[in-house]
Amino acid sequence: MQRTVFYVSDSTGITAETLGHTLLTQFDTIEYRQITLPFVADVDKAEQAVRQINGAAERDGQRPIVFSTLTSSELCEAINRCDALVLDLFSAFIRPLEREFNRGSSHVRGRSHGLVDRASYEIRIEAVDFALSHDDGASTRHYGDADIILIGVSRSGKTPTCIYLGMRFGIRAANYPITEEDLNDGKLPRVLMPYRDRLFGLTIDAERLRQIRNERRPNSRYASIAQCRIEVREVESLFRANNINYLDTSSTSIEEIASRLLQGTGLKRRLY
Amino acid sequence: MQRTVFYVSDSTGITAETLGHTLLTQFDTIEYRQITLPFVADVDKAEQAVRQINGAAERDGQRPIVFSTLTSSELCEAINRCDALVLDLFSAFIRPLEREFNRGSSHVRGRSHGLVDRASYEIRIEAVDFALSHDDGASTRHYGDADIILIGVSRSGKTPTCIYLGMRFGIRAANYPITEEDLNDGKLPRVLMPYRDRLFGLTIDAERLRQIRNERRPNSRYASIAQCRIEVREVESLFRANNINYLDTSSTSIEEIASRLLQGTGLKRRLY
Repeated sequence: MQRTVFYVSDSTGITAETLGHTLLTQFDTIEYRQITLPFVADVDKAEQAVRQINGAAERDGQRPIVFSTLTSSELCEAINRCDALVLDLFSAFIRPLEREFNRGSSHVRGRSHGLVDRASYEIRIEAVDFALSHDDGASTRHYGDADIILIGVSRSGKTPTCIYLGMRFGIRAANYPITEEDLNDGKLPRVLMPYRDRLFGLTIDAERLRQIRNERRPNSRYASIAQCRIEVREVESLFRANNINYLDTSSTSIEEIASRLLQGTGLKRRLY
Repeated sequence: MQRTVFYVSDSTGITAETLGHTLLTQFDTIEYRQITLPFVADVDKAEQAVRQINGAAERDGQRPIVFSTLTSSELCEAINRCDALVLDLFSAFIRPLEREFNRGSSHVRGRSHGLVDRASYEIRIEAVDFALSHDDGASTRHYGDADIILIGVSRSGKTPTCIYLGMRFGIRAANYPITEEDLNDGKLPRVLMPYRDRLFGLTIDAERLRQIRNERRPNSRYASIAQCRIEVREVESLFRANNINYLDTSSTSIEEIASRLLQGTGLKRRLY
């Protein structure tokens, strides 16, 4: 028996999804399928949403769960008439904030992930551009402009972490792959020397690394457990020998790597 | 007079930040500075957080606002003792969900953005890799594997949108730049012909394009308003002549572009 979970929003639905995910992970035995209904911005669309929710209730034989971030009271009321448990972010939290600030809220829709101010947009795009043009050691010329330079063996998670740091925090992150040749002489690559203060290491469990590399180049020497073990062991001793902070990415989400990195380095984010 | 807003979490703080941002955008005259306190996972850290919050209360002469997603009742209670308006996601919503599901919640911390299941992790990384290796027309060999191919003139927002689609939805998005040469003959580039059903256009206001290009190559022909106007006009008529859906990215966040694109195409996401 399955539930249907709806995320209803007058904008992208990101907040409703984030809220819902976080709450639902607390009930890990519940099975559910998820449907996002974004841009529910007028009565017509709200009524359409209600029909869809009621349809799911009938089909499932169980009330759907609705996470809503609608800002208009009129649309909220419309959604509240459906046959579901409606958890409404604004009803729960806007009143206490209005009291605290001693003023009414604007009820303007989609402010959070909709229109953006240009300054933030540019910081973000620039940081993503920076990550892309300084990916995998592609260019080291502008390392002086980097907020952080991630180093680690191939497939230890550097690229997605750099992009995420740019996208979410506006941080300019470069990354440089530590190769076998670098590991052989046990020294930091010369090009990284001037930037020691902004180096951060990523490492990974050798068996996990083998799996990931094997997806890319099945049965290669590159993906062999022997090779993975040697590289991981040597890169970790390189980090320790050079006093470089590092994180294990083996079973950590990109979000958590990025947050721990921020916390560990005290790096300032450019976007909130 | 400024308020301090705290995001307190036993994991990354992403949910608390998302929740807080969405609510605070409803009060646009309030000035505040933001502080995220992630990984508050034991009593010591909770007490440290309380001291920091109380310190801000004293300094600001106003109660801070605290958005909390702590899952442990013990830590929640600790945070609730601070001198602030505490808005606690779990207190507000977990009870109704427990009643609805007729069972207790697990109170396990950091499920949402912490540990990940490997299947989702791989879908995501693969999709980001796909976006990177099919960026800016770099490789067109695997277009058959693309879920969507974004097309548009240089700097119309294709790259960040592709990366975001991969990162958030696990969608494999390629992108192909429409250049002057393509525009001159008014036809779709030949390499795109076999994939007409998965093309999606991005366009942008000419003046906005001029600004963005000017950041990159100041005072170039590429960034001139005349050039931007011609390219935008011609690419839009190319889209229309070929029945290609398109979106204007001029004042739209990457999140909104991605959501509208999903909605407009009916594309199925691989991650929720």
